[in-house]
Amino acid sequence: MEDLAAEVVRRCRELAGVSEEPGRLTRPFASPAMARANALVGGWMGEAGMAARVDAAGNLVGHLPGSDPGAGTLLLGSHLDTVRDAGAFDGPLGVLAAVAAVARLRAEDVGLPFALDVLGFSDEEGLRFGTAYLGSRAVAGTLDPATLAVADADGVTVREALGAFGGDAGAASRRGERLLGYVELHIEQGPVLEERDVAVGVVTAIAGATRAEVKFTGRAGHAGTVPMALRRDAACALAELVLAVEAAARAEPGLVATVGRLEALPGAPNVVPGEATGSLDVRHADDAVRAAAVARIRRAAEEIAAARDVEVAWEERLSADAVAMDARLSDLLAGAVADVGLGDALRLPSGAGHDAVVLASLTPVAMLFMRCMGGVSHHPDESVEVADVAAALEVLNRFLRRLALG
Amino acid sequence: MEDLAAEVVRRCRELAGVSEEPGRLTRPFASPAMARANALVGGWMGEAGMAARVDAAGNLVGHLPGSDPGAGTLLLGSHLDTVRDAGAFDGPLGVLAAVAAVARLRAEDVGLPFALDVLGFSDEEGLRFGTAYLGSRAVAGTLDPATLAVADADGVTVREALGAFGGDAGAASRRGERLLGYVELHIEQGPVLEERDVAVGVVTAIAGATRAEVKFTGRAGHAGTVPMALRRDAACALAELVLAVEAAARAEPGLVATVGRLEALPGAPNVVPGEATGSLDVRHADDAVRAAAVARIRRAAEEIAAARDVEVAWEERLSADAVAMDARLSDLLAGAVADVGLGDALRLPSGAGHDAVVLASLTPVAMLFMRCMGGVSHHPDESVEVADVAAALEVLNRFLRRLALG
Repeated sequence: MEDLAAEVVRRCRELAGVSEEPGRLTRPFASPAMARANALVGGWMGEAGMAARVDAAGNLVGHLPGSDPGAGTLLLGSHLDTVRDAGAFDGPLGVLAAVAAVARLRAEDVGLPFALDVLGFSDEEGLRFGTAYLGSRAVAGTLDPATLAVADADGVTVREALGAFGGDAGAASRRGERLLGYVELHIEQGPVLEERDVAVGVVTAIAGATRAEVKFTGRAGHAGTVPMALRRDAACALAELVLAVEAAARAEPGLVATVGRLEALPGAPNVVPGEATGSLDVRHADDAVRAAAVARIRRAAEEIAAARDVEVAWEERLSADAVAMDARLSDLLAGAVADVGLGDALRLPSGAGHDAVVLASLTPVAMLFMRCMGGVSHHPDESVEVADVAAALEVLNRFLRRLALG
Repeated sequence: MEDLAAEVVRRCRELAGVSEEPGRLTRPFASPAMARANALVGGWMGEAGMAARVDAAGNLVGHLPGSDPGAGTLLLGSHLDTVRDAGAFDGPLGVLAAVAAVARLRAEDVGLPFALDVLGFSDEEGLRFGTAYLGSRAVAGTLDPATLAVADADGVTVREALGAFGGDAGAASRRGERLLGYVELHIEQGPVLEERDVAVGVVTAIAGATRAEVKFTGRAGHAGTVPMALRRDAACALAELVLAVEAAARAEPGLVATVGRLEALPGAPNVVPGEATGSLDVRHADDAVRAAAVARIRRAAEEIAAARDVEVAWEERLSADAVAMDARLSDLLAGAVADVGLGDALRLPSGAGHDAVVLASLTPVAMLFMRCMGGVSHHPDESVEVADVAAALEVLNRFLRRLALG
């Protein structure tokens, strides 16, 4: 398996050279680089015995028929688009590992009753249009006309981009087909597996998220002439909130909460801030836990404001529910992890979004996370160990065999 | 005295119409508006019996001889330049109150042994050249060649601006003359007198100040995928420092400390900040107290950094010593406050800088602060009560009589 794994890593690196920008990897939806990437990966699909095509939404689809035409189709894969200045593994690893899994089945002469479709989604990151999941939404049949009318920086709409690319998103929908599920391998993009010293983990859910902007308004004043007791310093209120957010998250297992943006106004060193704004991002795999934490943080903001005689304004910017992974498919993945000698599978939520979020409305979904060095992602330094890829390929192989047994 | 006080307020308002910008008060050093202001105030000086002239540094000087030519000269006044979009009283009040004090002596037929010079300084705010106190430094004889070579936004140097204005700064120096001191009335620009419900206070010292920039460097990460326990969040460290700064200042009477500017990087709502920077401004009338507080805050920053496994960098940007007011002149001012029935004078430090900082190297200095509404300054809303101006004029009158008695 090490040879196959090394080849997967080599192919990820080769694919990373297919970019819209010289010297760094940037591969947006429906771009010339994306067409070249589809051609390259489609060739590898052909070598693995699959019939490759690009669907009406720009997704690459490699098809391997099953022995029983009525057994339906299992979807495998990930995305082939990238962020700007991306790493080589976020997305492509899941596609090329699935291709390798098919190649191995063929090498082992294992026939599956169900068909396999390996998907290389055309847009998960949303780099070009600022609206993610274009490819998987087309497959799920949830790509609405409003999204098709969104324009990129050059004024080209999603619909026009797909037309130029040769597609018509509506025709990509797989709704109504007999699908067995969608299973995705993806790098963790976080440090948990590395910290726990395991190669892979089974995802429990994709966390729901709440985003808000919190603004405190006190009274600006001269930093030299206003005594401490007479201040209504908005930045001090925000500082208290930042620590309250951190404490609330630390107190709740699995909760992450972040103040990523801070601003104090007028922002001069010699002026007591009269206004201070922070962003808030709260995530948890359990929506009720997240809602309770957000309410607790909001109450803290109000208490801080009251104690300091400042005003607080709370503006919710986003609230997205968690997406649970399918229990049966996840248990099959965990069983496969045990089968290959990796012990009890670590179960962990995903804090980041994935195509599985969208496909969950179409078919049961499950995800296998793989360790990545330092949890680094969305950066050229993104890297993986060949041994971990080998372990992931073993798990996928066992998973497919278990699923074939029913 | 109410009539005289009302006239002082009226003149401040009239002078506020003399501006470089339509609709708001902006009167920079050596500007056409400054020349018109000098002419207007010079006329009022003449009405009060003074000979008015503009010195070589653009300062307006009104002279009233004393009865004893050997008794020396007392300097009174404040500045006539303003910040951008200024209020009517920051500076002009002190000049016009001094003119009114002279007018009153004349009306009361009181002759002083010493001469009086009422000064309207040409630059205290530093709006045009970013370097404050040009007028008073010329009078103190401390205007160095480097400062004369500083250029404004249009590339005009201080020296050229003075040349165009008709002056040559070197000739403005009063060093070597027999001077009795410099006494300035100024609005407090803070809320203390209002809070204590008194019209005026005697300044103890102009606070020294330390400014620094404090930068924490942790590790950026994905707000969804990095668990709380594995974070090295630079913004949380900065938040702790903001509160430590506030606590340090609250624990030390007279100390003020401010974090006026905050920034977290990369500054995206969904990224754990890897870097966070705050400005620090610490002031106290006692340099040793300030130095100890700065050391305490710096230690707190290091402890916070160590506890969070982040780095901290501390860059001192400014350290200016406190300037003590002259004890004898200040006691005379306090005696005058008692004389006019205002009880024991409130003594308070000045957190902001004034021309007295510069003149202290030339002659003993003292300052009388007057209440201003809400502590508001550097803003068109700046305002004063006529009754408070009347009280201040009474105090100035008694002060001059006491000084004349020796």
